[in-house]
Amino acid sequence: MNRNDLTSLLQAIHDGRTSIEEGIARLSQLPFEDVGVALIDHHRELRQGVPEIVLGERKSLEQLQTILKAMAAKGGNILVTRLSPENADQLCEDFPQADYDKDARTLTLIQQQIEENGKGTVLVVCAGTSDIPVAREAVITARMLGNRVVELVDVGVAGIHRLLAQGDKLRDAKVIIVVAGMEGALPSVIGGLVPVPVIAVPTSVGYGAAFGGIAALLGMLNSCASGVTVVNIDNGFGAAFAANRINQTGAS
Amino acid sequence: MNRNDLTSLLQAIHDGRTSIEEGIARLSQLPFEDVGVALIDHHRELRQGVPEIVLGERKSLEQLQTILKAMAAKGGNILVTRLSPENADQLCEDFPQADYDKDARTLTLIQQQIEENGKGTVLVVCAGTSDIPVAREAVITARMLGNRVVELVDVGVAGIHRLLAQGDKLRDAKVIIVVAGMEGALPSVIGGLVPVPVIAVPTSVGYGAAFGGIAALLGMLNSCASGVTVVNIDNGFGAAFAANRINQTGAS
Amino acid sequence: MNRNDLTSLLQAIHDGRTSIEEGIARLSQLPFEDVGVALIDHHRELRQGVPEIVLGERKSLEQLQTILKAMAAKGGNILVTRLSPENADQLCEDFPQADYDKDARTLTLIQQQIEENGKGTVLVVCAGTSDIPVAREAVITARMLGNRVVELVDVGVAGIHRLLAQGDKLRDAKVIIVVAGMEGALPSVIGGLVPVPVIAVPTSVGYGAAFGGIAALLGMLNSCASGVTVVNIDNGFGAAFAANRINQTGAS
Amino acid sequence: MNRNDLTSLLQAIHDGRTSIEEGIARLSQLPFEDVGVALIDHHRELRQGVPEIVLGERKSLEQLQTILKAMAAKGGNILVTRLSPENADQLCEDFPQADYDKDARTLTLIQQQIEENGKGTVLVVCAGTSDIPVAREAVITARMLGNRVVELVDVGVAGIHRLLAQGDKLRDAKVIIVVAGMEGALPSVIGGLVPVPVIAVPTSVGYGAAFGGIAALLGMLNSCASGVTVVNIDNGFGAAFAANRINQTGAS
Amino acid sequence: MNRNDLTSLLQAIHDGRTSIEEGIARLSQLPFEDVGVALIDHHRELRQGVPEIVLGERKSLEQLQTILKAMAAKGGNILVTRLSPENADQLCEDFPQADYDKDARTLTLIQQQIEENGKGTVLVVCAGTSDIPVAREAVITARMLGNRVVELVDVGVAGIHRLLAQGDKLRDAKVIIVVAGMEGALPSVIGGLVPVPVIAVPTSVGYGAAFGGIAALLGMLNSCASGVTVVNIDNGFGAAFAANRINQTGAS
Amino acid sequence: MNRNDLTSLLQAIHDGRTSIEEGIARLSQLPFEDVGVALIDHHRELRQGVPEIVLGERKSLEQLQTILKAMAAKGGNILVTRLSPENADQLCEDFPQADYDKDARTLTLIQQQIEENGKGTVLVVCAGTSDIPVAREAVITARMLGNRVVELVDVGVAGIHRLLAQGDKLRDAKVIIVVAGMEGALPSVIGGLVPVPVIAVPTSVGYGAAFGGIAALLGMLNSCASGVTVVNIDNGFGAAFAANRINQTGAS
Amino acid sequence: MNRNDLTSLLQAIHDGRTSIEEGIARLSQLPFEDVGVALIDHHRELRQGVPEIVLGERKSLEQLQTILKAMAAKGGNILVTRLSPENADQLCEDFPQADYDKDARTLTLIQQQIEENGKGTVLVVCAGTSDIPVAREAVITARMLGNRVVELVDVGVAGIHRLLAQGDKLRDAKVIIVVAGMEGALPSVIGGLVPVPVIAVPTSVGYGAAFGGIAALLGMLNSCASGVTVVNIDNGFGAAFAANRINQTGAS
Amino acid sequence: MNRNDLTSLLQAIHDGRTSIEEGIARLSQLPFEDVGVALIDHHRELRQGVPEIVLGERKSLEQLQTILKAMAAKGGNILVTRLSPENADQLCEDFPQADYDKDARTLTLIQQQIEENGKGTVLVVCAGTSDIPVAREAVITARMLGNRVVELVDVGVAGIHRLLAQGDKLRDAKVIIVVAGMEGALPSVIGGLVPVPVIAVPTSVGYGAAFGGIAALLGMLNSCASGVTVVNIDNGFGAAFAANRINQTGAS
Repeated sequence: MNRNDLTSLLQAIHDGRTSIEEGIARLSQLPFEDVGVALIDHHRELRQGVPEIVLGERKSLEQLQTILKAMAAKGGNILVTRLSPENADQLCEDFPQADYDKDARTLTLIQQQIEENGKGTVLVVCAGTSDIPVAREAVITARMLGNRVVELVDVGVAGIHRLLAQGDKLRDAKVIIVVAGMEGALPSVIGGLVPVPVIAVPTSVGYGAAFGGIAALLGMLNSCASGVTVVNIDNGFGAAFAANRINQTGAS
Repeated sequence: MNRNDLTSLLQAIHDGRTSIEEGIARLSQLPFEDVGVALIDHHRELRQGVPEIVLGERKSLEQLQTILKAMAAKGGNILVTRLSPENADQLCEDFPQADYDKDARTLTLIQQQIEENGKGTVLVVCAGTSDIPVAREAVITARMLGNRVVELVDVGVAGIHRLLAQGDKLRDAKVIIVVAGMEGALPSVIGGLVPVPVIAVPTSVGYGAAFGGIAALLGMLNSCASGVTVVNIDNGFGAAFAANRINQTGAS
Repeated sequence: MNRNDLTSLLQAIHDGRTSIEEGIARLSQLPFEDVGVALIDHHRELRQGVPEIVLGERKSLEQLQTILKAMAAKGGNILVTRLSPENADQLCEDFPQADYDKDARTLTLIQQQIEENGKGTVLVVCAGTSDIPVAREAVITARMLGNRVVELVDVGVAGIHRLLAQGDKLRDAKVIIVVAGMEGALPSVIGGLVPVPVIAVPTSVGYGAAFGGIAALLGMLNSCASGVTVVNIDNGFGAAFAANRINQTGAS
Repeated sequence: MNRNDLTSLLQAIHDGRTSIEEGIARLSQLPFEDVGVALIDHHRELRQGVPEIVLGERKSLEQLQTILKAMAAKGGNILVTRLSPENADQLCEDFPQADYDKDARTLTLIQQQIEENGKGTVLVVCAGTSDIPVAREAVITARMLGNRVVELVDVGVAGIHRLLAQGDKLRDAKVIIVVAGMEGALPSVIGGLVPVPVIAVPTSVGYGAAFGGIAALLGMLNSCASGVTVVNIDNGFGAAFAANRINQTGAS
Repeated sequence: MNRNDLTSLLQAIHDGRTSIEEGIARLSQLPFEDVGVALIDHHRELRQGVPEIVLGERKSLEQLQTILKAMAAKGGNILVTRLSPENADQLCEDFPQADYDKDARTLTLIQQQIEENGKGTVLVVCAGTSDIPVAREAVITARMLGNRVVELVDVGVAGIHRLLAQGDKLRDAKVIIVVAGMEGALPSVIGGLVPVPVIAVPTSVGYGAAFGGIAALLGMLNSCASGVTVVNIDNGFGAAFAANRINQTGAS
Repeated sequence: MNRNDLTSLLQAIHDGRTSIEEGIARLSQLPFEDVGVALIDHHRELRQGVPEIVLGERKSLEQLQTILKAMAAKGGNILVTRLSPENADQLCEDFPQADYDKDARTLTLIQQQIEENGKGTVLVVCAGTSDIPVAREAVITARMLGNRVVELVDVGVAGIHRLLAQGDKLRDAKVIIVVAGMEGALPSVIGGLVPVPVIAVPTSVGYGAAFGGIAALLGMLNSCASGVTVVNIDNGFGAAFAANRINQTGAS
Repeated sequence: MNRNDLTSLLQAIHDGRTSIEEGIARLSQLPFEDVGVALIDHHRELRQGVPEIVLGERKSLEQLQTILKAMAAKGGNILVTRLSPENADQLCEDFPQADYDKDARTLTLIQQQIEENGKGTVLVVCAGTSDIPVAREAVITARMLGNRVVELVDVGVAGIHRLLAQGDKLRDAKVIIVVAGMEGALPSVIGGLVPVPVIAVPTSVGYGAAFGGIAALLGMLNSCASGVTVVNIDNGFGAAFAANRINQTGAS
Repeated sequence: MNRNDLTSLLQAIHDGRTSIEEGIARLSQLPFEDVGVALIDHHRELRQGVPEIVLGERKSLEQLQTILKAMAAKGGNILVTRLSPENADQLCEDFPQADYDKDARTLTLIQQQIEENGKGTVLVVCAGTSDIPVAREAVITARMLGNRVVELVDVGVAGIHRLLAQGDKLRDAKVIIVVAGMEGALPSVIGGLVPVPVIAVPTSVGYGAAFGGIAALLGMLNSCASGVTVVNIDNGFGAAFAANRINQTGAS
């Protein structure tokens, strides 16, 4: 809308040819306001059952208490990620209905029933038992976001038959999150078995040349299975968020 | 072969309706065919319009000619990626209906109409003009896989208003592929604007501390927008393949 | 400006209490348009003497010819950076008044006298003769942007007396760009001698553990002289652009 | 001044043609004495209000007590950076008028009013709440050095509208320090919006492939906005010192 | 189940000697059991004296107690690697016959005599005294797997005569595991002296540019002695497991 | 000089048949000759059929011609690795019975029948067609060293059924060399399927975050299958040499 | 066994004074003893005043007590490096005449007067106060090895005049050890000022992109002053040992 | 010399108590003049037989011709390093008495007899034949600087007896330069055998995980032999320059 358009519009309002209501409607399309309202409302609005999400890391107990108190008062659901056990202990006292998962290091406070917002199942697969904490973060996040979630643990590539024996679960998933440390090979195998989206999560499990998850990360970025996508090391939360973006895609 | 099929087969052997030889023949197909049929048929079957895909890199002209000749004879569509201009010249002579894209370095041979297999639009966004080759590879791949594709170029974060002015395209996409080199910041901005899946493709565009795409790759893996997923550096093909996995998700 | 404000404004226009002109004025302050017009005009407007800048790298001769032709037609000045000698040869034929610097790999086309826009001198210091190409890119860019530039070459830290003998030039500069490869120590020494802004440019000069400029880059980022800032490896252009931002600061 | 000049000068002194005072004046211009006095006095002299700066890290409490006692006795202002809370507790007891900022980990002891030495405003922008400690170090340092400082927090690129809504602050700054972790994209966006100097500070905020700030550092070095300069990871102090160098530039 | 077995089964079904139900039962074991039985039985079966192996790292005391209790009940031998001293203390109380090696950080519980399963000697050589913990893990693992093991310590390359004086031990080994940190040169020297398999284990011993074992790892991967193979940093367990694979090779 | 030789020498001195001077002369050859004989004779002796090995890389044609001429004159077999096609062309003219493998870049000159020196089969498995050159180098080297070799190509983990269908070959091997680029996951899968030694060879196949084979190398070093050992990137020769060390182990 | 000894032995055999058996026995000691005596005696002999050196790191208190007790009994001098304060406390109780330097983390036990074994002075220069611990390790080691040592601290390149004011010390040194962290530029400046050997020691002082000393290490390896050599990060001991090798060079 | 001292001195000259000559003498000691004259004259003066050194890399033929012409006119000796064969061809035509070494890529022009300036022998040891070019650069440089040089080639650690057989040469050297690629282990072995200074030169020989010399560089920095110092990758020149610094040490 350039200056001429704007002049015409205001003239029409002035002349009464265009109603004020219609003027507002057209002006509300203006580039920026529009962006705020239309594109990014999913960030702000407080729809039923959609959680507020708080990164617990690098926040003091006092900060967390203040934030959670304010959020909880709104009556919505809350998910705190990467929360230390020490802070969790106190927060669980403050919010008795809150639930802390020691593996995932997440605190969930559910005040409203979670609406399932996707139409398919998110499968979270986990290569080894040491990868479980990251997988759990993904599971809990995906559920809080309204997804149906199935878990499958300890199906690493060194015992490939254990994975192959779970064909049903692989077949039934609409999105698969694959969590693996060390060489991070599992997403390649699964990506070759299924046609659905595969989100790979490298974990920092391993030692020496695992370099805190770099080996797994590189393995996943170089997957020989086409179309596997990757998130940051140990980022179960991000993988679940991505799975939710995908799962919602088919929902409408 | 499910339990019922197996019962019928054994019953027929028991009854003498099926010979032991034939029973062996059918059962010997079991172990991996079963895996093959159920889980990985999407890999093998030659559905109408689904292309055969060939990695052109590290293959000699002779190898490529042999492969394409055999594939073309089956009558399906073919996509060759990372093909050098020199090899492309000769192949385009051999297959006059083939089409080579100099930017994307892809050769496409379309012998059947491509069926749209997804129900939404794949938007391919590109930060700078130097990123276009990678974006083109994504566009061509996604189209060959049966997706409707829209392109949006030169909307880097240093001129953020150019991106924001394209709200419509962002809103209408079902999956967004974001291609960017240098600092790789564009997926973070877009991931914050839209709720749909965002697949980030780092490119090797840049010099010095760009380290051939590492800077962009790290930037994307650490995106502050939740749920952005990443593929390998310059991997437009992989991003399109992932977008196709997602787009198909909502198709059925 | 929320809905109520907007309604009031349009009502006032409708009622004739507010003129259309004033309505436009107020509406033009709306977040986005405003950004476009007010904040980023420095990007777009074609003030006298300010050059259009084109990155020559990764552009074909044809693309460059098209771009330069269009730009030249507007009558302004043009700076092409990272231009190959081959492309430069042809462009200099096309634009006889253009000038190509082989060291800097820049092409400049000056159609209007350059206005000096800063009020001080930009000093470009260069550790060794091998660093000259990057220093030249900085010098030419800074001049095209309207700065007075002084050069000082071959004053590396292994012969510290050569630098110290140039106290006058150091004292007279308002901004100093220091270009150095290998261990990249020169900015630390200069940063300790002068109170003005020092912009360090690591170069890819060196071999082995120089790692294409990483050694110099890290040296500069860890400078023991406080307040030295750094740009990308071999980024003489960026350093000059930063110097220009600074030099303009004191200009108004 | 060569041997002949020196001989002439001493002869003239000997003959009484040149006074001893004048001899001293001329000799004090000798190459490096001159450097010592003229160029680097800004390092040594104790101008009104300019703080002594102490790096608190790797110093024992005893060392710090000794240093601060000696400095405080001179009556000037003192800034201690990277000071542990434990050492700060004791130092605040020793120097009751000292002030410790827990976020910034700085101790300030103000014994003289700080003179504003720059003529513009330093804006310190911060991408996320986790980046606040580094931003605070920059804010406090810049103020101690005599700059007027404005802060702007939590305007990360994943919510770009929050930044764009702050056009006023961006427009009014003479120098902008941008503090960001994770992908470090904020300086690119701001560098594209404003014409003034932008100093980017990568932070170690993030995990996994953030690599303790490397991702942000690389992102900033490869900024697609021209003329953004960068300091070391978490180096809020250095950014403020650089901003002060710039801000002083226009002061005289 | 080979072709003969299958023929017999079908013949028995055909003849009515085996019921269809039983046939299904046996055939349903096929798909992966077949893989399982034929290829990977070495993983599962509980042969006399072959230990169960548990990775102690990242497991809680409770988890370890549960696992060991279940395993011990089967009567076989158990090896726990990378077990913290704290958890070891409690486990040694729970299982009084268990033995914890503080250097190797392994717990062994021997309930059956270990059968020697290889026909040669595994020699574990160790460059410096700081490498002993990794060497010990290799020694204990190799013994638990049924190998005869000889140790040779502190024969680093800086005192080459100490190694050369041990010609007998080198000559008598069938497989040699060489454990070394710092520059990791020992495997090259030994690989040049003997014709038998040499498995190199880099250790994280060293500081500074040892980079936690990377220097040693790279040294070993680039060994100028042909045919030296390498395992992960500090992976004494893996080296012993590889040595066992080799030693078993000649056993049958 | 063994014990018998030494006894003879001393007897001769004792008997006066050999002068003391001559005794000293012969004994002064002892120190390292002895080492040579006892420990490292496998390096020097020219047993029937064991090849001389020449690294073709970084040698000029003239150097290669001189070396091969001298070696060929001795009548043994010769293996030249990493030989450029240009040098190979000339050498094949000089030595008409020589054979150059374009994939493996090896030249072999067989003048004596190769004796099989191992008692088992070396299986060389290859993940993708691009990995074939490295696999071929391993195959040819292993054969030249006297091993029976079987090849298995294009069985990458993204199509796991193709590998599983080759159970026979895996079962029959005494040593397995697994060659893979990209994520390097194949050794983990194979290591989990078989009990025999597995030597992993990362290749430089891949692009972007494959980093010239680093991704595959790290994947293999972090294999979740116990006892997989690794050689340098693209080092098919070294893997075959290691396999030969192992295969010889069971030979005597 | 030198030539004379050998002549005597053979003469005795010749004369029948020594039996052939005994001759063989004595000669069989030759191979490595010889190496030991001739080449490496400097390692073993216990010359007056030359210290035994023990690496304190990664050794338990018990191990250290045992080692020191044994060594002390021989009456020589002892140097323990990288010793933790905790272990030092106990060892100083056990050996009351021992002296622990908290900065250098060295324990010295002097039981014999140290002989000066070099003919020149070792100068240890240190860039900043945080580098002092590493410098102290060098000073103490060099003194224990018998060198005259002079120290020069806090002469970093950001205040170059402080260094230049110490021309005397630089001129008088026969070997200079330069200890610096951060950008590690000091050795370049000093290497350009003096003709004597300069040994650079990078320290882990710094943060962020200092990467634990990598920045300083790379800076020193790429020094633009010719002939500067480098040791490992924080390796004050190694630098002193190297300086001693040099200083002894001129001693004889 | 502070102001008071200066005043006293000038007063004394004025009064005739101090002669002008003495005044000059004392003033010539002033801090930095002094540095220029006394400390760094070794850089500038043209003593008999000391070569001018030119880095041939990154210089055009024209630049080299100009430089050499000017230098040759002075009659001294000249050493050009890292000179391409193409430029060498022309320069050898221009300067017929010049000599180009193809391996070392050095051009030497000897117009005066080289004076031996050290009192000992520099031994240059080389691990493999591929390392010879770097070793040659060291040999030629050391000779041009006036040192007696002995070479020892192809004594890599995988054939340790070849090195040990050269005890004489090792024993006779006053300084040893050890050139090695791949794992870079040779300096550790030699450093353990001899008491004299050992300068290690990593080379870029190798492939894959050799990373262009990083593996060798790290190996050398982490040498388990105390007091080995290191120069940059492929820096034969620097090693020789360092050896010359050392060798001169004992000369006076």
